[in-house]
Amino acid sequence: MPKRPNGQRLLSSACSPLSEPTPPTVGAIEAGGTSLRCVVASSLEELSGATVLEVPTTTPEETLDFVARFFRPFTQQGAVNTIGIASFGPLDRANFTISETTPKVLWRGVNWHHELHARLGNLSVALETDTNAAVLAEVHHGSAKGARVAAYLTIGTGIGGGIAVEGAPLRGLGHPEIGHLLIGRVPGDTQPSLCPFHHDCLEGLISGPAIVERFGATASKLEANHEGVELISHYLAVACANVTTMIGPECIVLGGGVMENPHLLQRTREKTAELLGGYLPQHQLRDASLDTIVAPHFPHSGLVGAWLLAAALQ
Amino acid sequence: MPKRPNGQRLLSSACSPLSEPTPPTVGAIEAGGTSLRCVVASSLEELSGATVLEVPTTTPEETLDFVARFFRPFTQQGAVNTIGIASFGPLDRANFTISETTPKVLWRGVNWHHELHARLGNLSVALETDTNAAVLAEVHHGSAKGARVAAYLTIGTGIGGGIAVEGAPLRGLGHPEIGHLLIGRVPGDTQPSLCPFHHDCLEGLISGPAIVERFGATASKLEANHEGVELISHYLAVACANVTTMIGPECIVLGGGVMENPHLLQRTREKTAELLGGYLPQHQLRDASLDTIVAPHFPHSGLVGAWLLAAALQ
Repeated sequence: MPKRPNGQRLLSSACSPLSEPTPPTVGAIEAGGTSLRCVVASSLEELSGATVLEVPTTTPEETLDFVARFFRPFTQQGAVNTIGIASFGPLDRANFTISETTPKVLWRGVNWHHELHARLGNLSVALETDTNAAVLAEVHHGSAKGARVAAYLTIGTGIGGGIAVEGAPLRGLGHPEIGHLLIGRVPGDTQPSLCPFHHDCLEGLISGPAIVERFGATASKLEANHEGVELISHYLAVACANVTTMIGPECIVLGGGVMENPHLLQRTREKTAELLGGYLPQHQLRDASLDTIVAPHFPHSGLVGAWLLAAALQ
Repeated sequence: MPKRPNGQRLLSSACSPLSEPTPPTVGAIEAGGTSLRCVVASSLEELSGATVLEVPTTTPEETLDFVARFFRPFTQQGAVNTIGIASFGPLDRANFTISETTPKVLWRGVNWHHELHARLGNLSVALETDTNAAVLAEVHHGSAKGARVAAYLTIGTGIGGGIAVEGAPLRGLGHPEIGHLLIGRVPGDTQPSLCPFHHDCLEGLISGPAIVERFGATASKLEANHEGVELISHYLAVACANVTTMIGPECIVLGGGVMENPHLLQRTREKTAELLGGYLPQHQLRDASLDTIVAPHFPHSGLVGAWLLAAALQ
């Protein structure tokens, strides 16, 4: 993958969006905790082969200037007037703002609508959490396709979750915050939580950085028989079991960097079935859970979801 | 309250449905683990003052014969041709059947549709879990009125939960099974779980019978400073915190016999706020949770919900 100055990467150049775009063409941004991606496409098919700009998520100023430089050729021509954003959170979605409790300290209070307008002029903007956008992509076109109720968890720098009900994102008082589910620790686990709010939440126990603190290595480096695989998959299974008993999803998609460990998905499936203990047999959950917990279809589900949200505004 | 033979009780006789009912008149059944209630009414107003038959939930034959005797005068006249049922579960709702995993052993496999048809002839039947029916009643006309996302937990002989999203019951692979949320035990709590499936689920830890096992008294008998109030409200708060982080309900209604203890509701509110630790301040959850967790408006929310479901079929 070609490296560009300042950490910019072009993830794919199968199709250049700089050639004349076919309307309705919309833009999409996936803002993750460590990197941010931008794309422009006029259809899902075009999206899958489109040039994606990826930049590190540094300061809002620097990162958003990259974003503006990517979109400006399209917005100046009037080829793009709608951008969908899948952003890390928590969000105050009604006000297009990143919450003051986000662990990304520099981004506290950043207003997506304001920042994009200031740089790119008048635009329609759709904002959703990265994980709600991701579950939309997966439920409409990916691994969870057709599920009436589906959940998406991303286990990475942070842990986030999205829920789709009948094809729409679930939005209650806020958005799902599955990373902050309180999880009973296994006996003897005295590792300090990395979450500043909760002693025992999923994110505090097994986010990427928590795994490095525990085992001195990233999840991707842990072998099948490493104690970390057992512990991480146990805590993931408690979360999956609780998602299952609370909302009965037909599909739980597990994404994020931690899930790049090749052993975690299957161990989490097995442990979830063990924890559910054969309850709900009318749904054959013990068997079904082996298929219910799946990997994402899209490498960047949030980006696809952001694109879908923007396209829906057209 | 007048006692009648065989445990039958008339809960109210403010208005007798035996006088000429005004169409559309529908029937409703709330089948709980210990007692079952029937009512007939032509409006919500009439429902609130209507005669309710309450019988113990014994064998299906005996209990359903009481039900049939109550409804037959209406169905024979053609005054009632629709009955809504809010039933204990788990249910195989598509097949109108009580699941084989219900702890009510005698009721395993009972088919509501079949049993009512066999006794009362051709009827339209709406079936929902008792807790999904309850949350519908509370969200449309009760304590959770207007909440886009609301949850109802009943803490009694068993622990059940229902969720409403945009006014409709949430139904995924099954129905919500909040009673089987896995809950981390407090250090030193070695009390065996009363749930045959789960070592650490909410129902196994603090259902009515589990409370009696733990403290030798029903929850209603525990004083404010009793250790049981602390323990029960802690486990309830973990459940409420996890319901909050997962689905962000604007209202959590806590009903059931255990909640008749006058100290539990407020302690659960306080502990939920403590456990959430000030996260999600954009929603002022610490303050809002004091109002978010509430008692049911209706003494029998499930019965009202069953009536609403039947009325919706008209």
